Amino acid sequence: MEKEWVMATLEHLAEFGASERGITRLAFDTAERQAREYIEEEMRQAGLSVRRDAFGNVIGRMEGAESGAPAVVTGSHLDTVPEGGKYDGAVGVVGALSAIRQLKAAGPLTHPLEMIIFAAEESSRFGYGTMGSKAMIGMANIAAWSKAQDQAGVLFPAALAAQDIDLNKVKEAARQGEEIKAFVELHIEQGPVLERAEINIGVVEAIAAPTRLRITVEGTPAHSGTTPMEDRQDALVSAAMIILAVQEIALDESYRGTVGTVGIVKVLPNVMNVVPGWVEMGVDIRGVDHESIIDTIQEIKDAVSTIADGQETPVSIVVLTSDKPVPLHPEIVDTVEAASRSLNLSCRRMNSGAGHDAMNMAHIAPAGMIFIPCRAGISHNPDEYAAPDDIMNGIAVLSETLRQLAR
Amino acid sequence: MEKEWVMATLEHLAEFGASERGITRLAFDTAERQAREYIEEEMRQAGLSVRRDAFGNVIGRMEGAESGAPAVVTGSHLDTVPEGGKYDGAVGVVGALSAIRQLKAAGPLTHPLEMIIFAAEESSRFGYGTMGSKAMIGMANIAAWSKAQDQAGVLFPAALAAQDIDLNKVKEAARQGEEIKAFVELHIEQGPVLERAEINIGVVEAIAAPTRLRITVEGTPAHSGTTPMEDRQDALVSAAMIILAVQEIALDESYRGTVGTVGIVKVLPNVMNVVPGWVEMGVDIRGVDHESIIDTIQEIKDAVSTIADGQETPVSIVVLTSDKPVPLHPEIVDTVEAASRSLNLSCRRMNSGAGHDAMNMAHIAPAGMIFIPCRAGISHNPDEYAAPDDIMNGIAVLSETLRQLAR
Repeated sequence: MEKEWVMATLEHLAEFGASERGITRLAFDTAERQAREYIEEEMRQAGLSVRRDAFGNVIGRMEGAESGAPAVVTGSHLDTVPEGGKYDGAVGVVGALSAIRQLKAAGPLTHPLEMIIFAAEESSRFGYGTMGSKAMIGMANIAAWSKAQDQAGVLFPAALAAQDIDLNKVKEAARQGEEIKAFVELHIEQGPVLERAEINIGVVEAIAAPTRLRITVEGTPAHSGTTPMEDRQDALVSAAMIILAVQEIALDESYRGTVGTVGIVKVLPNVMNVVPGWVEMGVDIRGVDHESIIDTIQEIKDAVSTIADGQETPVSIVVLTSDKPVPLHPEIVDTVEAASRSLNLSCRRMNSGAGHDAMNMAHIAPAGMIFIPCRAGISHNPDEYAAPDDIMNGIAVLSETLRQLAR
Repeated sequence: MEKEWVMATLEHLAEFGASERGITRLAFDTAERQAREYIEEEMRQAGLSVRRDAFGNVIGRMEGAESGAPAVVTGSHLDTVPEGGKYDGAVGVVGALSAIRQLKAAGPLTHPLEMIIFAAEESSRFGYGTMGSKAMIGMANIAAWSKAQDQAGVLFPAALAAQDIDLNKVKEAARQGEEIKAFVELHIEQGPVLERAEINIGVVEAIAAPTRLRITVEGTPAHSGTTPMEDRQDALVSAAMIILAVQEIALDESYRGTVGTVGIVKVLPNVMNVVPGWVEMGVDIRGVDHESIIDTIQEIKDAVSTIADGQETPVSIVVLTSDKPVPLHPEIVDTVEAASRSLNLSCRRMNSGAGHDAMNMAHIAPAGMIFIPCRAGISHNPDEYAAPDDIMNGIAVLSETLRQLAR
């Protein structure tokens, strides 16, 4: 039974990089290589032709009836965050192979089918995410990537060389849009929306891109015992006001799907007996409505300015990254939705707050994404869990979507 | 001229641990050891007998005419906060030596005079303050101190061992009250009161004792891109509310002389793409009005409880230290005041918001403190400044006070 194969394969995958505290398969590390080699073997056993491109992305292919027709492509990634879970990425890889296995058994399609295992989707190891799909669409940033290193000091080019990949030849991994008819990625939601609404399938319409700010507050360090309350320029008090302003502004903008988070706080000198003189914050703003993001950033800037003046603590804001949200292709969105309905699965159109390889693939081909529920929305965490029935529902929708697109 | 020696000695001291961003002489570090050795040499040159006790406190002694009479003692500390100033502690050490030099030149007194360089007055490095004077009054908390470590992970016993001090023998540093007739400490005010009122000398009547709280917020770590604003238990948002509540409560209590500071914030996981799941804060509350301190703590507890419930983020509060304000001895207070008047210096009775070694010495001997103005009340900061004339006024009052007590 397909379900048994899928669950056994996911369980086997979960052994690579496993420890008591979750799964650690970082980009281009040994555990990720072993996991990839395991799935490559499963792909060959399923009758796919398997090759690795110049960046280490794995491409498995089943030819179609029409010679030279563009491929219908699916796939995801096998790398994880440190101490991550079993399902982020893995469901999309195992699901891709399962869908193609089923379609192969059902007989030939007009278009070729491909499944891809993207390299280095998570940014945890080298600071850059979705690198494999960026390389595939010809957007590898060789200059920046060549200087990246992991926490152990391993340079990115050295990590690639250990897997026989030459960063200078990565441009050879670039593919042309004409080769690809469509791209569809199956993934766990990584949020609580589907589970809470008891909906089987999320039909992704757009992928949020993060805007990231660094906000720095300059106060005056002073003795915490002797400096009267009225005489302080306490950088942390201003920072607390900014944290609450970001929260309030993001709550106000949440009806447009925007979220805002202060995830990083650094305080100096950060000791018990000194009024904080300096605070740095990292702010992450995401959404799929570009205007809402622009409004959110402007409101944060206005609020910060008011707080800086009122508290007499100068504040500076640096925009670290600012990308536009990526809309997915209406036809693919419609196809995913129709596939869900034809299978009697409940579905809801939604956006993806997290980034995915699909957002890069959307630049060269019509792209879509299929979300399945995950427990309590937990992801990037050993407690990440997706129920077998939900996984099989997702694979069924993926399979039907690929069939519709490739027939 | 004495003023030249004092200013040159302070300038020389300021070279130990100096950088562009202030002076860093942490408890038991190399710069503090060098500064101490420099002053020890100056003490010997002034004709004092010099010894180090079992905790590293330096005791310099000039015998009196009456054999076995208890000593009149003065002193302060040479360690600083990270990136601190030239005057906190140093004025009391150099001033002590200057006063004793002058008294020695003026001829014999009945009682012996002693000056002490207390070890580890600042809590910045190991989290415990006025350790040297605590050891001297027999209140060393060996069990707790043996577990303390600095930010680099150096255990306190190892830092002591590097200076040939055995934490298990620290009890030998304890002195009996009978040995000490009185203790007087000269110190910069570290607040703006004297400068603002244009008064030469602060006659300290009581020392505020810090109450220190550790407040820990438990939220739920979650993906910052995929978790809707309404579904978050963001520990940092709750922490920001608590920071502002502490500020507001302390402002309300400032009419009773109480101050409150959140000086420490630690966030986990403290990365851009995760909603903070855990925040720990260090809160410092000080005052000389014990009832106001009790009210302040209760109000903070109430506010924290309301925030914890409203935000659905459990919060725990641990009281790390809670000492009563320490009144200084009326006779010593009177003697300092009379000394100021006899020198035609303006003076005002006041309280100390900061803790000092004098508050420990007060447990075994009648104790007093002499404050001098410092610019804008700034302390624990490279901009800390006390004018030479104010320093010399303080030394004159110290010298006259010691003379009255020791004659």
